[in-house]
Amino acid sequence: MSGPMKTLRHLVLLRFKAEASADAIAAIELGFVALRSQIDGVHDLEWGTDVSPEGLAKGYTHAFMLSFDDAAARDAYLPHPAHQAFVAQLKPLLDDVLVIDYFAAHS
Amino acid sequence: MSGPMKTLRHLVLLRFKAEASADAIAAIELGFVALRSQIDGVHDLEWGTDVSPEGLAKGYTHAFMLSFDDAAARDAYLPHPAHQAFVAQLKPLLDDVLVIDYFAAHS
Repeated sequence: MSGPMKTLRHLVLLRFKAEASADAIAAIELGFVALRSQIDGVHDLEWGTDVSPEGLAKGYTHAFMLSFDDAAARDAYLPHPAHQAFVAQLKPLLDDVLVIDYFAAHS
Repeated sequence: MSGPMKTLRHLVLLRFKAEASADAIAAIELGFVALRSQIDGVHDLEWGTDVSPEGLAKGYTHAFMLSFDDAAARDAYLPHPAHQAFVAQLKPLLDDVLVIDYFAAHS
């Protein structure tokens, strides 16, 4: 914990292999979003595809941001069977993944 | 625009040079947060430092997530003098930056 009442953000960026089909990517989007209802402790999940004009996305096209109340909820999510099944579905399509978690401080 | 009423997230990940001092990095944290009040159209700014146990952060240590009502607000932010002055302060300390923007869909 890094302070009271700070939401823990779990940010996942995905870069797909060139051969990943649009249908397969759409299935991944649906599968990721479904984790919200499959795993207790994910209190929000938002996502979108890159629209930055800056050209600094390093080839990552998809961002998913999950929110947890605390590190314990994130620690329960990572090895959860539903998450692991999703990772197994994702892996063959994946070129690279970036994950960064932070306790959200607001200005 | 990618649909009505979707918040545009502007996500910035920073990786600092090894020689960047803790004081210099703290000044960058403050400077980034200050942009919220210096630039109209930034309707939220949150940030934090990486606490992921997964080892997939690619060396990025800091995440800043700015929220805009639309692409026009983001487009006004990027060349804004206050943002450009901040970038000039950041650049000598910066090893790499990743930027991804997305219109937030919620599950």
